[in-house]
Amino acid sequence: MVGRTAIDAYLQDHLDESIAELSRLVAQPSVSAQNLGLPECAALVAQMLQNRGFQTEIIPTGGAPVVFGERKGRSDKTLLFYNHYDVQPAEPLELWDSQPFVPTLRDGKLYGRGVSDDKAHITSRLFAIDALLAEAGELPCNIKFVIEGEEEASSVHLKDFVHENVEKLAADACVWEFGGVDHRDAPMQYLGLRGICYVELSVETANQDVHSGTGGSIFPNAAWRLVWALNSLKGPDERVRIPGFYDTVKPPNARDRELMDALPETADEYRERYGLKEFLKGLTGGVELRLAEVFEPTCTICGLTAGYQGRGSKTVQPARASAKVDFRLVPDQSPEEVLELLRLHLDAQGFQDVKIDLLGSESPARTNPEDPFVRLVVQEAADVYDMPMEIVPMTGGSGPNHLFIEALHLPVVTAGMGYPGTLAHAPNENIRLDLYLKHAMHMARVIQTFA
Amino acid sequence: MVGRTAIDAYLQDHLDESIAELSRLVAQPSVSAQNLGLPECAALVAQMLQNRGFQTEIIPTGGAPVVFGERKGRSDKTLLFYNHYDVQPAEPLELWDSQPFVPTLRDGKLYGRGVSDDKAHITSRLFAIDALLAEAGELPCNIKFVIEGEEEASSVHLKDFVHENVEKLAADACVWEFGGVDHRDAPMQYLGLRGICYVELSVETANQDVHSGTGGSIFPNAAWRLVWALNSLKGPDERVRIPGFYDTVKPPNARDRELMDALPETADEYRERYGLKEFLKGLTGGVELRLAEVFEPTCTICGLTAGYQGRGSKTVQPARASAKVDFRLVPDQSPEEVLELLRLHLDAQGFQDVKIDLLGSESPARTNPEDPFVRLVVQEAADVYDMPMEIVPMTGGSGPNHLFIEALHLPVVTAGMGYPGTLAHAPNENIRLDLYLKHAMHMARVIQTFA
Repeated sequence: MVGRTAIDAYLQDHLDESIAELSRLVAQPSVSAQNLGLPECAALVAQMLQNRGFQTEIIPTGGAPVVFGERKGRSDKTLLFYNHYDVQPAEPLELWDSQPFVPTLRDGKLYGRGVSDDKAHITSRLFAIDALLAEAGELPCNIKFVIEGEEEASSVHLKDFVHENVEKLAADACVWEFGGVDHRDAPMQYLGLRGICYVELSVETANQDVHSGTGGSIFPNAAWRLVWALNSLKGPDERVRIPGFYDTVKPPNARDRELMDALPETADEYRERYGLKEFLKGLTGGVELRLAEVFEPTCTICGLTAGYQGRGSKTVQPARASAKVDFRLVPDQSPEEVLELLRLHLDAQGFQDVKIDLLGSESPARTNPEDPFVRLVVQEAADVYDMPMEIVPMTGGSGPNHLFIEALHLPVVTAGMGYPGTLAHAPNENIRLDLYLKHAMHMARVIQTFA
Repeated sequence: MVGRTAIDAYLQDHLDESIAELSRLVAQPSVSAQNLGLPECAALVAQMLQNRGFQTEIIPTGGAPVVFGERKGRSDKTLLFYNHYDVQPAEPLELWDSQPFVPTLRDGKLYGRGVSDDKAHITSRLFAIDALLAEAGELPCNIKFVIEGEEEASSVHLKDFVHENVEKLAADACVWEFGGVDHRDAPMQYLGLRGICYVELSVETANQDVHSGTGGSIFPNAAWRLVWALNSLKGPDERVRIPGFYDTVKPPNARDRELMDALPETADEYRERYGLKEFLKGLTGGVELRLAEVFEPTCTICGLTAGYQGRGSKTVQPARASAKVDFRLVPDQSPEEVLELLRLHLDAQGFQDVKIDLLGSESPARTNPEDPFVRLVVQEAADVYDMPMEIVPMTGGSGPNHLFIEALHLPVVTAGMGYPGTLAHAPNENIRLDLYLKHAMHMARVIQTFA
């Protein structure tokens, strides 16, 4: 095994070169929502892998291609990195202090669209590989990269891709695209994502809006139908009323509670940042608030639309009304099942007229906090970061990690250079160079020890 | 009394002159919603009254002035005409076949914004007066005109104006601004308007929208609060749940039922025009449908707004949500009382967080179908129109008729030249010249017999 001092020295000495490579990647726009620059960026990423001796393929999907790269190493073990080369739209442009696709260094930070999410995670991992290759001439284990181009557009083709390439993607462990430190600069190990079933509910009661003086007493009103249908889904007690919805919910176990209890308090920060008067269900803070936040499934109205929405009054009875609703799911719920239960419930409640359109879905999935690979990643963070890595057994968001956990049977860990001011998805997205370097050091250690 | 033949002959001979005067009035834009041309139009209307020997005042209000005119006649009786000189906005301009403020004659119809609502009603009534004056040199009774400039903007200053000018407006009967024939060309006598209490309900639960992965389980959601508050107002049985809401409702009496029973069937036309599958409350048509349409109070959602309303999905939990809601009221409900009951109800249901903004209100009011003046107006229609005038004891809309019925104690009748294709409030608004002439003939007869 190459000495850590040598590797760290290599990384410190070559940081500028890696940032230059990152800057070339950020300068190539690759906005999946706008179908902008995706093949060009895929080609650029494939070239970067080839430069490190990876066998590389650009694999077509129904949408943006997936870049796959593989290089054999000394041991039989295989580590898989999941990343994405697409980025969020740069708009609103007027809120950027420098141009989003002209990467700019200021105060130890590199600014640009997609720099944090997810391009610096690609190049910093390649940078760790550079250090290992420079010092030893070979990789300590097999390394594979799967770098998709539709992560910011719901990874719509990834499910088919993974299922069709189970052998190609075979590995022993997976490092996820993101990760980072919290407000104290403590590195966090986020394990587990909730699933999601995002639907649009819509009702049409007439072919046109009607004057409310005419229709109010005798015509069905789409807005009322929608309100009553929504009300049938959840009441003020926050309990979802769809029969069977909670049947497959696994509550957090003792170890989950222990890990959640060890995390810092969030209640005051939430109250202040969002101007909240209170939390739901009588929660006031502590571990119970943190457990409810991520270990419970939800039914959230994300939007409502009907009739007249301008200033003042218009006496109109809406012919059409719709709502965006997202269900966040926890193991072992599935979006397919929730969609089916929702239809059954609406029909049983007399809302056959309420149409359901599925706008997106992901399954929930968790990696066991006790998995040896999780322990390895946590341990290897110890001499890179000033604070120990904390384990968050479950998070509130959603993503395609379930494909890697369930179809490929891999433990999936998170590690990266995100930080509370990184502004992913927002204007002035940036990374801190100190965290970029630390992530490369951490990744080099993980690869070495894992091998 | 001047002979009807002479009056009819005068009106037929001078129709072109009256239409020319109407055209000058329509050519003067007077859009209350856009504060466009109101003083100019008031001056023009006042001049028209002065030309007929009326003593005229242009009376300031907090908004557009009221034009008041009075001319004494032979008898002690006084007839009051209520009209308005303001019009709806002309937009969308691209849907007009000729310019909205360039009155244009085509196929026996005059086109222009405000021609039907309400400028032709002003000039046709002056035209009837011209005929009476030309034949007899004096009016058979006292005539007053109150012509406001804010009818299309909720008549916001009319209530104060009427209450401050009870003596000036004193009369024995009132002819309302509008009226007309139905699809069979049968003249209709619309008596009674429902009241209205139009509110905006709004909720704010945070100072900004929150990612639904974070807030879904633990932060209050404005859209849910709104849905539950609305659901507390009315359920799928269509019964308003606000305690006391129905306490002052007067059901239709035997004569109302008889009159409603005599009206033509509307069910099939509604089904076809609006593409309805069914009516509410199991109604299928007939007198019960017509009674429910106008004799029952309503609670109508006119609009819903919250969170993300664009295409596709956005995982956001809305901090703000609002609904426009109108209550149509029947005698003896009052908008002030309904507003108070609504606040009490929301508070009692735990919705103190739901704010109520009153956006408009009118009281319900009816004129007795047996009133002698109603009978007179119906009788005098008989030899002008080919079909007898039918009495509609109540209608679904709302307006300021209650001020004249309750503060001035007048019977209020409707008469006019509206017809199903008149397109009031829409592009290509028009009047039929044959109905213009008939209305003038009808009004001359009403004034003579009333005197």
